[in-house]
Amino acid sequence: MRTVEWEGGAVKMINQRALPWKLETVRLESVEAVAESIRNMTVRGAPAIGAAAAFGMALAARQSKAESVDALLADLLRDGAMLKRARPTAVNLAWAVDKLLQIAESGEFNSADDLREVLLQAAQQIAADDVAINSRMGQVGAALVEDGATVLHHCNTGALATVDYGTALGVIRAAFQAGKDIHILLDETRPRLQGSRLSAWELEQAGISYDIIPDTAAGYYMQRGEVDIVLVGADRIAANGDVANKIGTYQLAIMAQAHGIPFYTVAPTSTIDLGLSSGDQIPIEQRDPAEVTTPYGNPIVPAHFKARNPAFDITPQRYLSGIVTEFGIARPPFAESLRRVVAGQQA
Amino acid sequence: MRTVEWEGGAVKMINQRALPWKLETVRLESVEAVAESIRNMTVRGAPAIGAAAAFGMALAARQSKAESVDALLADLLRDGAMLKRARPTAVNLAWAVDKLLQIAESGEFNSADDLREVLLQAAQQIAADDVAINSRMGQVGAALVEDGATVLHHCNTGALATVDYGTALGVIRAAFQAGKDIHILLDETRPRLQGSRLSAWELEQAGISYDIIPDTAAGYYMQRGEVDIVLVGADRIAANGDVANKIGTYQLAIMAQAHGIPFYTVAPTSTIDLGLSSGDQIPIEQRDPAEVTTPYGNPIVPAHFKARNPAFDITPQRYLSGIVTEFGIARPPFAESLRRVVAGQQA
Repeated sequence: MRTVEWEGGAVKMINQRALPWKLETVRLESVEAVAESIRNMTVRGAPAIGAAAAFGMALAARQSKAESVDALLADLLRDGAMLKRARPTAVNLAWAVDKLLQIAESGEFNSADDLREVLLQAAQQIAADDVAINSRMGQVGAALVEDGATVLHHCNTGALATVDYGTALGVIRAAFQAGKDIHILLDETRPRLQGSRLSAWELEQAGISYDIIPDTAAGYYMQRGEVDIVLVGADRIAANGDVANKIGTYQLAIMAQAHGIPFYTVAPTSTIDLGLSSGDQIPIEQRDPAEVTTPYGNPIVPAHFKARNPAFDITPQRYLSGIVTEFGIARPPFAESLRRVVAGQQA
Repeated sequence: MRTVEWEGGAVKMINQRALPWKLETVRLESVEAVAESIRNMTVRGAPAIGAAAAFGMALAARQSKAESVDALLADLLRDGAMLKRARPTAVNLAWAVDKLLQIAESGEFNSADDLREVLLQAAQQIAADDVAINSRMGQVGAALVEDGATVLHHCNTGALATVDYGTALGVIRAAFQAGKDIHILLDETRPRLQGSRLSAWELEQAGISYDIIPDTAAGYYMQRGEVDIVLVGADRIAANGDVANKIGTYQLAIMAQAHGIPFYTVAPTSTIDLGLSSGDQIPIEQRDPAEVTTPYGNPIVPAHFKARNPAFDITPQRYLSGIVTEFGIARPPFAESLRRVVAGQQA
């Protein structure tokens, strides 16, 4: 089962808001519905959002009544802009939309229907590539995880965060499949609890040993020597190696450095944004404080209690041991190694 | 209203499990019920637990059918041991029980009923002292909080964690009452959410400006320069200055040091355990994982998902800027300054 896919002229995706209670899919028949599914986190995880946006563009093309390529392109530009506004931090969203717009702008089509077909094929390719890339990253990263290791993991970076397999959780999966005896400490990842709701659900399915821990306990386990490596994903990586990722990543990186524990980000090159020189330029989404005070509809405090809810933070590159990509592990100095992997060369 | 007090032959306390939804009190008529109220966190916060245990001992004396001082002492030793077992980390619990047992063992009584009366007076004195001590710590610590400052605070250290007023939140209260324009970032403090459920409730009542933040966001706000000082409480302080406090304190201390932000613990001298040379010797309570997976009866994941739930952590003394006590601010080297304040001398 794929997190997001094309089915009979619509976008079908796992409803991640319903997990771990219920594995259900939703079928989206308009680009507006796809944008909303990204906003409300029915689909989340930078690579999964990228694939959802690509299929959203294919759906936009199908939905458009345009008869000429030019008219269709105009509709796609409008709908692409709407999709990109759905969430600001993960670059994979804009990356996927722009990739399909480039195809549409290339002008190499005889008809609007030709373009519709080529866009759908391109979206299918993005989804297929994502699975292949994750599998490669898993092989590359598994070497970092030693037999007997305990891995600390934040948020969800698994099959659900991607089209399938996962980034950081993909590395964990690959290490497990290679027969290594590993244990995973899953940060529950407040406020949206992707660690306890999604990553724990995936590791239950995979039969990989884990414990959910409150986000407050990460330092405790590091201090006790119970963490051998920290693996996280990324929503956007600047040219200098600064990483935007789920809120709480930055503090894990500080703690890992204080304890001499290796800290790796696992992300496909589509997450690298060479257009930004540093993490300062990455926009940080501020989400509804109700996600803090009333998570998943269960109020933990009265609605008038005040809260703040930044969704991501920036980890400066100096905290990173390396960035695992499909072209190998980029190491400091990242300005050079990231340019190489983005160009498709080995890190 | 006091968090815990003696009323008509019973121990009356605010039921902290019911907040912030309902301010209700419970009336406990047996020492066993007092022990259970400590275990299940109807009352929590090191100084409040100390006062509850003192009243528990007065109740034990009243409950005992002993007619001789010796027979009463035997009952008190048994009940004191039971109370001390209720929670292992906060030393104030054992401190209060031992204080009352010392009185009982002094042998300076004509009758068991005399002893019962003296023990009740001693418990009342511990409770009254706690309020006075908190008020003094508030005055001492308020000087650390500058006008316009944003304070990061963890867990609950307020009136509810004490008999009244609070330790770290008492300092915040005093700074506010001195007319300083301050803002408080309240770590929600998973798993039991004392920050969002109790501290936010107290600051709402007091009219002090605050925002609840997920525990994952503390580093984010420090990185942005939005935190001027971190104030926390303590459950036990070793002779060298190592501090046991609510899980998550240690990582805040690491982050504060990484950002050059002052980090202070506020605690009465009854929290200092000179019998322990370092924090390594402080027992860390491991609580029911269901507090993580099903907080306050609301399941966030299926019951069979695995979790761990350490209740406290140890912050090594090198991370502390100082320890605010009723005898002034103890500074490094703590081995000396803590001995002075425990002896009742100015730090």
